[in-house]
Amino acid sequence: MSGNPGDAPAGTAGGARGGAPAGRPDNGPAVSRQEFDALFASVRTWGRWAEADRGAWNGVTADHARRAAAAVRDGTVVPMARPWDTRPGPDNAKPALHYMSDLGDVQAPEPSVHKDFLAADYHGKSVTHLDALSHIAYRGQLYDGRAARESVDAAGARFGAVSALGPLVTRGVLVDLPAVLGVDWLEPGRAVHARDVVAAQEALGVTIGDGDAVLLRSGALRRRRELGPWNPDTASAGWHVDALPMLAERAVALLGGDGDSDVRPSPVEGVHSPVHALAVTAMGVPLLDNLDLEPLSAACAEAGRYTFLLVVAPLNVPGGTGSPVNPVAVL
Amino acid sequence: MSGNPGDAPAGTAGGARGGAPAGRPDNGPAVSRQEFDALFASVRTWGRWAEADRGAWNGVTADHARRAAAAVRDGTVVPMARPWDTRPGPDNAKPALHYMSDLGDVQAPEPSVHKDFLAADYHGKSVTHLDALSHIAYRGQLYDGRAARESVDAAGARFGAVSALGPLVTRGVLVDLPAVLGVDWLEPGRAVHARDVVAAQEALGVTIGDGDAVLLRSGALRRRRELGPWNPDTASAGWHVDALPMLAERAVALLGGDGDSDVRPSPVEGVHSPVHALAVTAMGVPLLDNLDLEPLSAACAEAGRYTFLLVVAPLNVPGGTGSPVNPVAVL
Amino acid sequence: MSGNPGDAPAGTAGGARGGAPAGRPDNGPAVSRQEFDALFASVRTWGRWAEADRGAWNGVTADHARRAAAAVRDGTVVPMARPWDTRPGPDNAKPALHYMSDLGDVQAPEPSVHKDFLAADYHGKSVTHLDALSHIAYRGQLYDGRAARESVDAAGARFGAVSALGPLVTRGVLVDLPAVLGVDWLEPGRAVHARDVVAAQEALGVTIGDGDAVLLRSGALRRRRELGPWNPDTASAGWHVDALPMLAERAVALLGGDGDSDVRPSPVEGVHSPVHALAVTAMGVPLLDNLDLEPLSAACAEAGRYTFLLVVAPLNVPGGTGSPVNPVAVL
Amino acid sequence: MSGNPGDAPAGTAGGARGGAPAGRPDNGPAVSRQEFDALFASVRTWGRWAEADRGAWNGVTADHARRAAAAVRDGTVVPMARPWDTRPGPDNAKPALHYMSDLGDVQAPEPSVHKDFLAADYHGKSVTHLDALSHIAYRGQLYDGRAARESVDAAGARFGAVSALGPLVTRGVLVDLPAVLGVDWLEPGRAVHARDVVAAQEALGVTIGDGDAVLLRSGALRRRRELGPWNPDTASAGWHVDALPMLAERAVALLGGDGDSDVRPSPVEGVHSPVHALAVTAMGVPLLDNLDLEPLSAACAEAGRYTFLLVVAPLNVPGGTGSPVNPVAVL
Repeated sequence: MSGNPGDAPAGTAGGARGGAPAGRPDNGPAVSRQEFDALFASVRTWGRWAEADRGAWNGVTADHARRAAAAVRDGTVVPMARPWDTRPGPDNAKPALHYMSDLGDVQAPEPSVHKDFLAADYHGKSVTHLDALSHIAYRGQLYDGRAARESVDAAGARFGAVSALGPLVTRGVLVDLPAVLGVDWLEPGRAVHARDVVAAQEALGVTIGDGDAVLLRSGALRRRRELGPWNPDTASAGWHVDALPMLAERAVALLGGDGDSDVRPSPVEGVHSPVHALAVTAMGVPLLDNLDLEPLSAACAEAGRYTFLLVVAPLNVPGGTGSPVNPVAVL
Repeated sequence: MSGNPGDAPAGTAGGARGGAPAGRPDNGPAVSRQEFDALFASVRTWGRWAEADRGAWNGVTADHARRAAAAVRDGTVVPMARPWDTRPGPDNAKPALHYMSDLGDVQAPEPSVHKDFLAADYHGKSVTHLDALSHIAYRGQLYDGRAARESVDAAGARFGAVSALGPLVTRGVLVDLPAVLGVDWLEPGRAVHARDVVAAQEALGVTIGDGDAVLLRSGALRRRRELGPWNPDTASAGWHVDALPMLAERAVALLGGDGDSDVRPSPVEGVHSPVHALAVTAMGVPLLDNLDLEPLSAACAEAGRYTFLLVVAPLNVPGGTGSPVNPVAVL
Repeated sequence: MSGNPGDAPAGTAGGARGGAPAGRPDNGPAVSRQEFDALFASVRTWGRWAEADRGAWNGVTADHARRAAAAVRDGTVVPMARPWDTRPGPDNAKPALHYMSDLGDVQAPEPSVHKDFLAADYHGKSVTHLDALSHIAYRGQLYDGRAARESVDAAGARFGAVSALGPLVTRGVLVDLPAVLGVDWLEPGRAVHARDVVAAQEALGVTIGDGDAVLLRSGALRRRRELGPWNPDTASAGWHVDALPMLAERAVALLGGDGDSDVRPSPVEGVHSPVHALAVTAMGVPLLDNLDLEPLSAACAEAGRYTFLLVVAPLNVPGGTGSPVNPVAVL
Repeated sequence: MSGNPGDAPAGTAGGARGGAPAGRPDNGPAVSRQEFDALFASVRTWGRWAEADRGAWNGVTADHARRAAAAVRDGTVVPMARPWDTRPGPDNAKPALHYMSDLGDVQAPEPSVHKDFLAADYHGKSVTHLDALSHIAYRGQLYDGRAARESVDAAGARFGAVSALGPLVTRGVLVDLPAVLGVDWLEPGRAVHARDVVAAQEALGVTIGDGDAVLLRSGALRRRRELGPWNPDTASAGWHVDALPMLAERAVALLGGDGDSDVRPSPVEGVHSPVHALAVTAMGVPLLDNLDLEPLSAACAEAGRYTFLLVVAPLNVPGGTGSPVNPVAVL
């Protein structure tokens, strides 16, 4: 069920198939649309908060930040952003852009200046980014029941913009499932269940609590480096919807991962990204997609701790549905 | 010498002149090119560090981060990014871009998705950003004496890229000069001298130390909101070069401000951005430009403390000369 | 009523006000919304054509192109595109982008290659461009009565795309009103009426006929060069709606100008761009905006002819609402 | 030697390999670097023209345009641009961008407006574009012997810009080699030699003359539609350098094709794009890349004529190394 690089056929890396997994993945029990809708209703926190477009972050106070900072032990700083990638690939359908706009060859006066231009349609499978609450609508509604059609237009989001969210500072918890399971990575398509979280908490010595940011490591980046890229829309490890009630009960404030949190193929009939809908739309919990959690995994293993101060600082984009970010852990 | 909004002529806000200051500003004593070159040589740290393209950050250790985190008192989180501004103006010659790439109107399946595209030629006077060491060359050389022409080309920077720098976590110090002087802002063109730092340290109860990030507030954003924008290339408050030796002696690791650190017009003959050259090129100290320090000023005044945990998380752009950022203070 | 550079105050060029006209322009008789709607109904050609998203171009045949080519006399080639302008200004709120993506400094092998990146949000007042039929909706309807909301979304236009229009080849007619009136330019805000067209036909020796492209010169580019730019949304010379019935009766296929065809301020109550609505939405006639007609004016004067072969070749953008173009006259 | 769709294995279209050709293509006799340099010198026209950055177009006069227009027979208009393609692929490494910037949902007043944003790093294998003389340097020199390093920098080309070239109007000749050879397309890698031109002239009843634009059809677009895309850097049909002396002798002014004119792999030792160097750099002849010549082939076959009026209208980009275009033939 989980990946083992020893099983990988030699020579597949860089080949025509790259890291594309073989066979139909086991992505957990199928869920009917009716069951999903019941689940959605059960974790929904609509109407709870004054500043609705900050969602679950209404519940994260200065005290959460204070405690997370106070728990810093050695001060090791670990970034989580994947490189800005301008090359297309099976997991990069809309490559980011990077052009030099000044090479110091144009203007004579001192000092000479080098400048660059950056651009990205960052929601996708390559750029490390934050999903704000305006990113996802289910049955025509954003978080808090706002009508998507009246909340988002070509000028941007009037509700749930990333600028309303602001920086996110709280305790982070790394659910390092490959470490728990003693494997190098989870195979694409592997669903992560509530029972996996229970096992991880015990193995890693952590208890997920209110206001926490839960980062799920599947080892996807390690797999990508060893076997080559694949299309994550076809198969990726991620949360099964059955894990969400537990995360909702714990009142987590942020979910992130080295995928985009959803296991694919989706186990839910007619819903391509059910965890997005549950987290963002029902619970008001933003998502962090496409993290590189390999350095953090190593740092946590070295430190013997899987909690840390987490700082996520999205760009201040009025009306933006999210932002490229470089989340930072301080251990 | 410093601004006083009571003196501002009524009705200038939004007028044709906007907030353009009247008269030739007092930007401190003129400095000859020869004097500047001597100053450059005196603060230069070339050859000192193993990872040269991290410059002064070689001297910032996990312990700096640990101590900065330990000093967090109440956990107040304060962002410093100005809004992503797509409208041109006297201080926004290359407006950022923001387009919606998906409005949930295209794809039928649930959930519907809203996406956007962001772009910026971010070095300039509007986007809050970090300058990496590849941004500035003086007399053809980058930091550590690297030849600019061989280090930066159309593919980006091979030395001093922002990706080499990584996230910056240390103690931040707000040099809130308007608070010290009891004014609302410094008039554009007002030079900030070493003696101002001495006065600020005493008034604010801080001592700048090694590895600190020093953020200079001139109140420019407040002035802009009250009087309208102006062209900061013509006049802006910022460091006079005479303040740099003291900052170099204290081994600061980062300079930032609500301008771009340089006082303009430049007091140095033939050098348009002398503080850029001294900080970035001579000292290996990155810069934070175009911060909005108004919320931080209010938070520090409220807390009665002008130091805080600072986290700057640039995007992971290989070859990039900097990055848009949203620096975060935790008090 | 019309401009005369001899009257221009000396020294205004490049000044704070640039070429902004003084006083409230005479933009012709006011038109009520009811009168406008009657006019709209009277020139409407909905339901007439098989390929509705080609609009009036259904009526332009190979024979029109053949006759226009046959009428070429000396072969003088005249372009009409303004320069791609990356600098903001009162008439350039969304500056085009131009970055070098390869300077031959990156790749060693021969030959070395220079490349560039171009970008534009081209509808505006600077980039010379074609408006396709999807560009304008009136009362929620595109040309042929198509519902705008169902025809255009974040993926582009499914009706009236520029790719459906294809290249436009026909006879062009230059309505060179400053030449007719013996002035250097029309003042911004000067409305052009049906009677002006009658006068122009007589003075210039042309008769506008079916399938013609009618290009209206106001001399705006000459005025801009002499007096500096101004905001054309505030005041620009262009067609008064009272000229449209005559143009509709003549079955013209394309309208263009050195403005955007509409006189501004709009004489029509509650409709900011009435000529856009009449031409594009009612008549299915695309528009050419922001032409530089100065060279063509000189060439026509020299040749003593105001008709020519016109070729407009929009980029082949599926779903595009128009395209940057460089229209070409061959005399 | 040439392609035959009857030979194509069934079912390859859309497969993992797409239209990638099998085996090492026969791309003509190998050419040493020394032989190439002698060839370069023999076709070089440096120093010949007053307006050097217009290259061979100095020799194309109004009379060429007049004669080309006069030869129009039926007025059939044929475009040649491939669709603006935002999807990556083996022949589209830098996909063009297309975003809607206004969907009429933002502004209340009538009429409502739909706008879009276009962007492209257009030199490549997908966007139909023109190469200006600044695009290619050989041994550090642009056309006319200008030093590349002093002529092109981050601000663009000061010599050989597309804005200097302007619109190109002349007689076009379609060298429809698959029609001559009775095949559907030339296999990728098939070199086109001087003898092929001789055969084509005879079969198609044309004689290439001075000032002509010569468009080479390989049938690549038909092959792509039937078998899927492939990487043209690996294999593409195009001119062998041995054809260039004849084209130079005829004083052609423009070369274009449904590839990028060069046969690949290159037959010239150490020169990846020898036809680019000969045409652009030695002869001052711009290139048209990535044309869709399928409609023109059909139109010419129908008309029984392979010459036509050609109009190429590049965007007016100061400093640009070329431009996306939609070339138009009028038969």
